Amino acid sequence: KKGTRVAPYAGMPTLLDVPHRAVDWAALDLSGLDIALVGVPMDLGVTNRNGSRFGPRALRSIERVGPYNHVLKTMPTHELNVADIGDIPFRSRFDIALSHADIEEAARKIVTAGAMPLFVGGDHSVSLPILKAIGAERPVGMIHIDAHCDTSGPYEGCKFHHGGPFRQAVLDGVLDPERTIQIGIRGSSEYLWEFSYESGMTVIHSEEVTGLGVPAIVETARAVVGDGPVYVSFDIDSLDPAFAPGTGTPEIGGLTTREAQGILRGLSGLDIVGGDVVEVAPQYDTTTNTAHAGAQMLFEILSLARLSRRFENSGRS
Amino acid sequence: KKGTRVAPYAGMPTLLDVPHRAVDWAALDLSGLDIALVGVPMDLGVTNRNGSRFGPRALRSIERVGPYNHVLKTMPTHELNVADIGDIPFRSRFDIALSHADIEEAARKIVTAGAMPLFVGGDHSVSLPILKAIGAERPVGMIHIDAHCDTSGPYEGCKFHHGGPFRQAVLDGVLDPERTIQIGIRGSSEYLWEFSYESGMTVIHSEEVTGLGVPAIVETARAVVGDGPVYVSFDIDSLDPAFAPGTGTPEIGGLTTREAQGILRGLSGLDIVGGDVVEVAPQYDTTTNTAHAGAQMLFEILSLARLSRRFENSGRS
Amino acid sequence: KKGTRVAPYAGMPTLLDVPHRAVDWAALDLSGLDIALVGVPMDLGVTNRNGSRFGPRALRSIERVGPYNHVLKTMPTHELNVADIGDIPFRSRFDIALSHADIEEAARKIVTAGAMPLFVGGDHSVSLPILKAIGAERPVGMIHIDAHCDTSGPYEGCKFHHGGPFRQAVLDGVLDPERTIQIGIRGSSEYLWEFSYESGMTVIHSEEVTGLGVPAIVETARAVVGDGPVYVSFDIDSLDPAFAPGTGTPEIGGLTTREAQGILRGLSGLDIVGGDVVEVAPQYDTTTNTAHAGAQMLFEILSLARLSRRFENSGRS
Amino acid sequence: KKGTRVAPYAGMPTLLDVPHRAVDWAALDLSGLDIALVGVPMDLGVTNRNGSRFGPRALRSIERVGPYNHVLKTMPTHELNVADIGDIPFRSRFDIALSHADIEEAARKIVTAGAMPLFVGGDHSVSLPILKAIGAERPVGMIHIDAHCDTSGPYEGCKFHHGGPFRQAVLDGVLDPERTIQIGIRGSSEYLWEFSYESGMTVIHSEEVTGLGVPAIVETARAVVGDGPVYVSFDIDSLDPAFAPGTGTPEIGGLTTREAQGILRGLSGLDIVGGDVVEVAPQYDTTTNTAHAGAQMLFEILSLARLSRRFENSGRS
Amino acid sequence: KKGTRVAPYAGMPTLLDVPHRAVDWAALDLSGLDIALVGVPMDLGVTNRNGSRFGPRALRSIERVGPYNHVLKTMPTHELNVADIGDIPFRSRFDIALSHADIEEAARKIVTAGAMPLFVGGDHSVSLPILKAIGAERPVGMIHIDAHCDTSGPYEGCKFHHGGPFRQAVLDGVLDPERTIQIGIRGSSEYLWEFSYESGMTVIHSEEVTGLGVPAIVETARAVVGDGPVYVSFDIDSLDPAFAPGTGTPEIGGLTTREAQGILRGLSGLDIVGGDVVEVAPQYDTTTNTAHAGAQMLFEILSLARLSRRFENSGRS
Amino acid sequence: KKGTRVAPYAGMPTLLDVPHRAVDWAALDLSGLDIALVGVPMDLGVTNRNGSRFGPRALRSIERVGPYNHVLKTMPTHELNVADIGDIPFRSRFDIALSHADIEEAARKIVTAGAMPLFVGGDHSVSLPILKAIGAERPVGMIHIDAHCDTSGPYEGCKFHHGGPFRQAVLDGVLDPERTIQIGIRGSSEYLWEFSYESGMTVIHSEEVTGLGVPAIVETARAVVGDGPVYVSFDIDSLDPAFAPGTGTPEIGGLTTREAQGILRGLSGLDIVGGDVVEVAPQYDTTTNTAHAGAQMLFEILSLARLSRRFENSGRS
Repeated sequence: KKGTRVAPYAGMPTLLDVPHRAVDWAALDLSGLDIALVGVPMDLGVTNRNGSRFGPRALRSIERVGPYNHVLKTMPTHELNVADIGDIPFRSRFDIALSHADIEEAARKIVTAGAMPLFVGGDHSVSLPILKAIGAERPVGMIHIDAHCDTSGPYEGCKFHHGGPFRQAVLDGVLDPERTIQIGIRGSSEYLWEFSYESGMTVIHSEEVTGLGVPAIVETARAVVGDGPVYVSFDIDSLDPAFAPGTGTPEIGGLTTREAQGILRGLSGLDIVGGDVVEVAPQYDTTTNTAHAGAQMLFEILSLARLSRRFENSGRS
Repeated sequence: KKGTRVAPYAGMPTLLDVPHRAVDWAALDLSGLDIALVGVPMDLGVTNRNGSRFGPRALRSIERVGPYNHVLKTMPTHELNVADIGDIPFRSRFDIALSHADIEEAARKIVTAGAMPLFVGGDHSVSLPILKAIGAERPVGMIHIDAHCDTSGPYEGCKFHHGGPFRQAVLDGVLDPERTIQIGIRGSSEYLWEFSYESGMTVIHSEEVTGLGVPAIVETARAVVGDGPVYVSFDIDSLDPAFAPGTGTPEIGGLTTREAQGILRGLSGLDIVGGDVVEVAPQYDTTTNTAHAGAQMLFEILSLARLSRRFENSGRS
Repeated sequence: KKGTRVAPYAGMPTLLDVPHRAVDWAALDLSGLDIALVGVPMDLGVTNRNGSRFGPRALRSIERVGPYNHVLKTMPTHELNVADIGDIPFRSRFDIALSHADIEEAARKIVTAGAMPLFVGGDHSVSLPILKAIGAERPVGMIHIDAHCDTSGPYEGCKFHHGGPFRQAVLDGVLDPERTIQIGIRGSSEYLWEFSYESGMTVIHSEEVTGLGVPAIVETARAVVGDGPVYVSFDIDSLDPAFAPGTGTPEIGGLTTREAQGILRGLSGLDIVGGDVVEVAPQYDTTTNTAHAGAQMLFEILSLARLSRRFENSGRS
Repeated sequence: KKGTRVAPYAGMPTLLDVPHRAVDWAALDLSGLDIALVGVPMDLGVTNRNGSRFGPRALRSIERVGPYNHVLKTMPTHELNVADIGDIPFRSRFDIALSHADIEEAARKIVTAGAMPLFVGGDHSVSLPILKAIGAERPVGMIHIDAHCDTSGPYEGCKFHHGGPFRQAVLDGVLDPERTIQIGIRGSSEYLWEFSYESGMTVIHSEEVTGLGVPAIVETARAVVGDGPVYVSFDIDSLDPAFAPGTGTPEIGGLTTREAQGILRGLSGLDIVGGDVVEVAPQYDTTTNTAHAGAQMLFEILSLARLSRRFENSGRS
Repeated sequence: KKGTRVAPYAGMPTLLDVPHRAVDWAALDLSGLDIALVGVPMDLGVTNRNGSRFGPRALRSIERVGPYNHVLKTMPTHELNVADIGDIPFRSRFDIALSHADIEEAARKIVTAGAMPLFVGGDHSVSLPILKAIGAERPVGMIHIDAHCDTSGPYEGCKFHHGGPFRQAVLDGVLDPERTIQIGIRGSSEYLWEFSYESGMTVIHSEEVTGLGVPAIVETARAVVGDGPVYVSFDIDSLDPAFAPGTGTPEIGGLTTREAQGILRGLSGLDIVGGDVVEVAPQYDTTTNTAHAGAQMLFEILSLARLSRRFENSGRS
Repeated sequence: KKGTRVAPYAGMPTLLDVPHRAVDWAALDLSGLDIALVGVPMDLGVTNRNGSRFGPRALRSIERVGPYNHVLKTMPTHELNVADIGDIPFRSRFDIALSHADIEEAARKIVTAGAMPLFVGGDHSVSLPILKAIGAERPVGMIHIDAHCDTSGPYEGCKFHHGGPFRQAVLDGVLDPERTIQIGIRGSSEYLWEFSYESGMTVIHSEEVTGLGVPAIVETARAVVGDGPVYVSFDIDSLDPAFAPGTGTPEIGGLTTREAQGILRGLSGLDIVGGDVVEVAPQYDTTTNTAHAGAQMLFEILSLARLSRRFENSGRS
């Protein structure tokens, strides 16, 4: 049985090596699918180094992530029906507002079709239209792992840039700030993120992580998000650039991959409703380490999804 | 219409961005398909720097090659049914003889299924089992563009290494040496290739190319292969390492991409029966230039295939 | 005297190591300046790999280009007053239409202020607003060295993308197609460039260059542009990716730097009115070769500017 | 005296800059030698990214590792006779079984010749034939630092691949599982390593390291291996890819170099009988950090060897 | 207001994006300036991998460091007048003794002109002439973060190499060893640094950092330097090569950026009299991580300078 | 016989894979040796990007250059006794004048010991002390392939920098300018090289090469150097940076490797008395192409040496 697995470098590249499922976005049918992995190759919201439009391709090229999560003791791709349904279609690669509309529409379709979506960006601005789809009926809580709060206001006449999706999501009523925790925050832009504090988000800075320890952070995170629906947003720049150089707005002094995995693995049993991994820019990723970390974090979130309340009675075993 | 094309960086990566067609190798059905693009991720025949097992993945990741060949005035993927049918399945990634048997069997199945196959290696040893399938009924001629003649004998007890496929193909009766031309030859191993001369192959060294000029080389090549069936084998190390650093046995003083394209584009109207692009090792390809050149050469060979006798009356237009 | 020159790696980085002149764009005063070098860090018009927003920074970091052009026998930065006036100011990094308006306004100000401008992109879409400023009073001719004609129509609802500036410039009446020559053209998109032929541009493909030879191309170019005002637009992707990997839409089979320099150096004595070097994307430039080539081409164009009719009686010597 | 040391970048490259000693493998004479450093450039057992055949060359190129270990207070290359005896000779670069036989024979010769051997791979499969030589007379214990347990069974018809050497070594009676500790384990393949647990090996996962702390891990390791003979096997992929990107099966969430050094330096005074550093694949090592870490770990193991029981009364001082 | 900030990738590159102030070194006038950032592109003191002559250029190219330090709650470039005054002028790029004289003279001029200088190297030998200028009137204390003590004696006839500046500075009476702490020390050269211990410096090795913890190290550092004048010297090789590969004498097992920032941020309120960031060699910095870390450490030191006694009553708020 | 050759990636790295011969420089004995390959790891004469001190190591790491030169029909390492005798010893890595004295002394010893020396730099300044040794008894002629004439005068108080060795060699009476040809010249420093013209050297610029053609250049070169003793100096920056990015003062528009090999291969039968390959700086050589080209050019010069008058009656066959 083991002997028949295809070599990691062979076959068509897909996210986490799950099967590709070709879909018709005009009439999206996801019947039988539990979880949809989907690419969002859009980076028009970037304020500095661009390139994360190649993020989905980069993650698809990574070998050997999954199938087994030995800490969470799950093999999600074997226990649920998971597929890579390709990338969200865009009407224009030149217009950020139009792109956000396209993302929102596609996300709504996936939700309506009944699969839990996990997205791969693209820049972090994509989380706004995604949340508008996922939180349309009630605001959701969020585990947000990132170097930046991403709660600044409109900038240069644009409210869709990657520095502000979560302020806008709160204003749009799709994100519950009091059930939101932001972990790994650092850098020189703290003065732009007053909204996080004013709206009631919990912020854990990167420089606090050693002192607090991962178990305490997990405990805080679980307390913040509680029993309600939770979205998990993982910005790869939460990791220190030593671990993830391939991103557009790196900040030194960040999380290690071990810390980030430790935090994610502590979140088993929540009511996960979706998630994303964003800001992988492979042009700056000379070793593929960043895409590799992104793929593994996607696998951790997928494991959380499999262990979430929605699927607690599921399983193909 | 143009406005609806997907962005080059979006979507599932396939060879030349043609549609992927999932196949069952146990009962290969290629009905309706004119040309099958197929990966051969095997590099156990390498004598020096390995890594071309990642060659098919590397070519699938390249954007923006095709659809139109303005010199040959063809849009092959629109005029014929072309698909990427994935990679040949291997029973073992540790055994070269078994791998060659797997390649030969898969190649036979494609030929039997009625599609013309174009392969992406993998190391150059893969051309031997391919030729054994394609030339099974009668020996074929060959346009062979390479830095090395690849006609040396068994080595360290192995007759399947990447330095000798074409000697073995002649001995196996599947390659006609008198209808074979080798172009771009150079390096320090000439003393290993007596078989090329003894068997009657035509050899054009790289250092002769400027003096001869591309038109004269084209004329010679057409004269050598004549009207019979022809296989086109393109080793990426035929190109100078400035153009294609990502390969295992580079040799300076090689062809430019313009020269190589000029030669290939001169071969319109031959009786093409198959072809390959081999030896792309992306670990050594810091700029993606090598994979890019490999994809473009695959497109040139695809254009020749479309314009070959077999399809001269075809076309979906 | 020579002994007091600063080391190439020392000092503030500027384009071609000319002095930086800080300017107030709200009231642009370029008095005393003959030629203004100016950066245009905008890449929202890119259709594939982005990143040329870092192009001006990349060229400023290059050492040892200039001061002497031994073929044209000029030392332009010593014979004229040349300064790097920094980058064009943008109101938004998220909006291509607004950015084009900003570029056009800035270019008009430079022209009005009396200096000849040479621009460093940014993507090739920037040439459109520049031409609208430079050709405002009468259409200009153009020496256009590029892999692509860049004369396709609106795409995905946008007429400002980097694939179409020169079609739009003709439609806007600022570019004279019959006095335009496009050199180095290749790739798989020829079917998008009918406008070049229909409007009367002269197109020389890359695959013709060896056969024609550089002197004949120079002769043709001079005949096409004649005595009227001429803009020189150099897209770095005209060069083969072996010479210039750091660009967003590379095409193999391109020009060598020696050929490109040969063409440019043949254009001495024309009525140059401005120029640009565009599409350097340093993220893909693992060796700095691309930025280096870009800086040298800028120096060649600067040499042509110094030897153009406008300055034929100038010189500080 | 210090002033006469050769510059680190000068001279013939050898492992840890020790003298090269040319040997005749047909009649191996190591008289006078205490410790032999030896390369094993073989990577046919790799399941994913290959290239560690270049590992010995990569480590030889590293400058400035040693001579003094200030934590262990030893200068091993000055206190003992240590030489780089070159690489093990192979009959074939195409046959893994034959290669394993060659390694075993060479390792036996070194042991017979009376020097303690420290090996540089090559992939981790090489540890199997080495252990068969070193443990021929009695099973040895092992300190095994790695991301993977490497105790899976035969795969694709091969029992010599790099995922299973230590299962096979136990089955062959040369490794004592109850005196074996595996540190740094992680990744998605835990389900393949039941043998570790069933046979009685002690496994410390990477995610446990922060919580346990290095001193406790050292204590456990010393308790596990006890007073008997111990082999030290260091797989470079035990380190996080941020510290060691150049390897074939990277796993995020790994050890830091400081942790790995802390563990090794805690093992002074054991009965070391040999060791290895494996899986350095320089093609993926864009900064030389991986080879550098490999060389330093080799130096740490060499320091342990010098301080082991065998040499406790030795020293040239 | 925020909306008018220039994009990080635009504009002339300067250290920390502060304004460039062109100066006449023959008659240095720094009136109105509080802090001068200055480059020292000299690497003739390097013992191994050279290239840090490009260090100042590398730091100038980094985007997005500053303006706000949220831990120290200061925005130094807004609260004080800070400028990049360019690079120290050198009479020769071939003579280390002459270069040291040039550095000392330039440093004296800056001190005399009344600005606090922060330097960017260049190799670490530059700290000797800087200290000779800054400590001319009385010896200063030092926070020295480095992998190496840099207190070895003359070597190959040269006392100005980068392995010995602080021994020489003590001997020259400009550095007080008892008020000097060296943090992050490691590697294989401990036997060269007896002077550190003999002269009374406090040395904290890298392997002690986890056990001690950053708060205790901060406490020790503050106790060592006390109330007197303090120089801060940050050698980028103090960081582990995973975090800072771009340097000439890397040593594994080093500090994380988070630890280094934690230490620096603990030093608020000291009597800072100057500082430097040295040994960034961008040739080895494939990701720009090293230059990025260097720029951030410069910003941390700038924050300390702003919060030092000298400026405690300053501020432009 | 062939089957027993060691794999290219195995064994101790030496120049061209010839045997290493350990020598005692204090009493140099080269008895039995025909040709000595020797490294000169010194780059203190560099004016811009340094790093060529690692040049000899870089060339030793290259695989698969030689043994057969099929154009010149010689296998020099089999027909003569050739060894890599390691690197010239230096008293100081900080002093260029002392280093030049060391090189001159070592070169004299090799000449006196009776072997023909071929050197690997190091920067081009090393050719001056080498020529002082080789031309001590009578001035020699020179085939000089380079982007720069290297005939400028003292600079910043130093006459030993890498921009002037051949002016100084003429002034020192060891180089005959009228028997010197410089090929590949280009760049922006022509105004520094008046001495080439004034002294009677023949200069062929890079931009002339296409027009002249390689055969005519060969003819001119042979006419210039005539029957007398000839030194061959190959600066890797003669090659275009596309072919050789790893060098300190690159100039675009350079030679292809095919042109350079064509020129060298045309020089069979001259009275070669020594040669060098210089300026390979591997820090800038992301693909190893530069070191590879350097090794091949060394092999071409070695082939010329074997076919020179001195050895015309030699041969071990």
